[in-house]
Amino acid sequence: MPIITLTTDFGEKDHFAGAVKGAIYTELENVRIVDISHTISPFHLTEAAYIIQNAYRSFPPGTIHIIGIDSELNPENKHIAVSLDGHYFICANNGIISMLTNEINPDKIVEINIHDRITSNFPVLDVFVKVACHIARGGTLDVIGKSISEIKELTGIKPVVNVDSSQIIGNVIYIDNYGNVICNITKSLFEEIGKGRDYKITARTASFTKIHTHYSDAINFELPSDKREEDGKKLALWNSSGYLEIAIYKSNPSTVGSASTLFGLGFRDTITVNFEK
Amino acid sequence: MPIITLTTDFGEKDHFAGAVKGAIYTELENVRIVDISHTISPFHLTEAAYIIQNAYRSFPPGTIHIIGIDSELNPENKHIAVSLDGHYFICANNGIISMLTNEINPDKIVEINIHDRITSNFPVLDVFVKVACHIARGGTLDVIGKSISEIKELTGIKPVVNVDSSQIIGNVIYIDNYGNVICNITKSLFEEIGKGRDYKITARTASFTKIHTHYSDAINFELPSDKREEDGKKLALWNSSGYLEIAIYKSNPSTVGSASTLFGLGFRDTITVNFEK
Amino acid sequence: MPIITLTTDFGEKDHFAGAVKGAIYTELENVRIVDISHTISPFHLTEAAYIIQNAYRSFPPGTIHIIGIDSELNPENKHIAVSLDGHYFICANNGIISMLTNEINPDKIVEINIHDRITSNFPVLDVFVKVACHIARGGTLDVIGKSISEIKELTGIKPVVNVDSSQIIGNVIYIDNYGNVICNITKSLFEEIGKGRDYKITARTASFTKIHTHYSDAINFELPSDKREEDGKKLALWNSSGYLEIAIYKSNPSTVGSASTLFGLGFRDTITVNFEK
Repeated sequence: MPIITLTTDFGEKDHFAGAVKGAIYTELENVRIVDISHTISPFHLTEAAYIIQNAYRSFPPGTIHIIGIDSELNPENKHIAVSLDGHYFICANNGIISMLTNEINPDKIVEINIHDRITSNFPVLDVFVKVACHIARGGTLDVIGKSISEIKELTGIKPVVNVDSSQIIGNVIYIDNYGNVICNITKSLFEEIGKGRDYKITARTASFTKIHTHYSDAINFELPSDKREEDGKKLALWNSSGYLEIAIYKSNPSTVGSASTLFGLGFRDTITVNFEK
Repeated sequence: MPIITLTTDFGEKDHFAGAVKGAIYTELENVRIVDISHTISPFHLTEAAYIIQNAYRSFPPGTIHIIGIDSELNPENKHIAVSLDGHYFICANNGIISMLTNEINPDKIVEINIHDRITSNFPVLDVFVKVACHIARGGTLDVIGKSISEIKELTGIKPVVNVDSSQIIGNVIYIDNYGNVICNITKSLFEEIGKGRDYKITARTASFTKIHTHYSDAINFELPSDKREEDGKKLALWNSSGYLEIAIYKSNPSTVGSASTLFGLGFRDTITVNFEK
Repeated sequence: MPIITLTTDFGEKDHFAGAVKGAIYTELENVRIVDISHTISPFHLTEAAYIIQNAYRSFPPGTIHIIGIDSELNPENKHIAVSLDGHYFICANNGIISMLTNEINPDKIVEINIHDRITSNFPVLDVFVKVACHIARGGTLDVIGKSISEIKELTGIKPVVNVDSSQIIGNVIYIDNYGNVICNITKSLFEEIGKGRDYKITARTASFTKIHTHYSDAINFELPSDKREEDGKKLALWNSSGYLEIAIYKSNPSTVGSASTLFGLGFRDTITVNFEK
């Protein structure tokens, strides 16, 4: 059974997501719809890019991903469908999948051109659903669009490496549900530039000389529990998506605080790695 | 496969929605459950009415819609099942579907009378699920209730037209996820009363003399992008549901603000259309 | 078709829940995934325990429940799979299902030992999904773990009865979507200790001498509606889960207030029942 996922900024309350599901089931009897997220901050392309990048990999090949963020058609915001890494993505050409195409070459990109048949101010419902169901029925991209080679790039999602490779300057791209702070420095870039050297990570007032692989690595379980200083224990780690994350062990943004609130780190703030010379 | 949708004020956190789904799957092996919304403001009948009205149309004929808002049975709040426009609605007789029945005549309304067999203080789980599964198995409404001809009306959801048809006075019925303000003036009423005349829309401090059909219509894409004044661009438009909406182009209520916060427009506030004489 | 439910503190926004669903569908073509809740307060074991206890009963026997709260593997937090009351539960051994095992003896508990094959800092995705799909395919618990007899207990979820059985001292364990306050005193304990005696319930400034079974019981429907004092009507009742609940009739935490805000009752606060001697 084909799978169609939904990643949008529709929110959980409005009728938008429900209407889109109804429209899909009206077109296709046998299809599985999976919500990835409907609570992307409105029009926040970087958040959406981070989420879809980390979610899509878990789905089976052939999955069709609808991304409904900033999707209104206008002269500078065309609709595209992309085949990449065995998956399909349907979205506006607003940079949202440039995080994916930076890492993996797309097999095909088409600019959707079925709009002569559809007028709408709810393009996810009227256009993206049509395209998704077309693909789910085994249709090709060529039927619903014309091939293009370039897509728009999202700015500020790539870290900067200085000339002598002694420094990586990254930016916060996402704050997760636990208030953990994720930046755009990946493990692969870090290892490529660092080549095993010692390093110091600076994130505003916090600094780290070690990057862990589990949150629990911050805790010394050999000490008796009242001597462990578990609460508020800060750490840097490679998160499950391969990104550098600044975290607080067992944080809760609305009670004890989180890495984001305690270190004052928000979207676009700088996180720097300095390697030993 | 029959489809049962859920529209409730249960919230996303509590066990209520999960329990209802479990109960449906316990009764029926082959059924599709679709969440429309679980974050209606508690007991907010108008919000629920707006959402179900705009979501149900996208679903295939025969879909069964459970609406779980203010559904506790008491002498003034009976349970009903309604067949309308090819769909089924199960809810309390509290006015929640009067927005639907104002536009489309129901084929049948029954007052559910299976309560002698069921005592409950979780009627959605115990009563509505039973009724929904009965309908999903092909059962008729007559078996689970007695036919009635009238249902309770929701107050304040109809705009007022003055005697000489020079003015429509509407009210805000919904604020969406982007902070856009939706009022109860529909395009069809507007065209019937306006008959092509010029008009001025007044919503507290904001006024409009044009109603667009796309958010992007507020932007002049022929100008270079730094001269466009995109940010904060206000507009009136017919939304995808056919209602008059006051919007800010690419608004985000929690950062740059929205039509609701910038114009100070909340539920029940007045929006007026004055036509030229 | 097997059913796998998800109860987590992942939140609605992040990619975590979506990724877990993708991983399940990658392993199993025919399976039904049901979200119970993804908005448990981060690391809040009692909330998760309350929610899973009240949701699981509605699902068909054989349902597999993944509970993703505080699930990182460390020397003091092992992974377990439990067969109980005809259902399967997969979670960390952090006390989360002790609310269940206090009432019903588990048929089998195993400590999951497939970690030699899997390294991960996203155990729900990498370990729990594997175990759930193994069970869904009809696999036994013995294959994925070694049998244990004891599980960790959650503290503070059991009320205290004084020596002469004149008093039950309970604690708030949950605040629901309507701001209603749920404490750990169950109807069965109350009846066992009370034996039909009169009583007085004290919850900070509020007191009650009657426990209702419906919210509407607080209202006298024989009075004309303007004489009823419906708004803000407080009541104690047995909720649909059999727990003592302090409620406000038709409360809305963000507008008119709720039992939690009006009586200043939060998690762990004391609620006392004094029986007549």
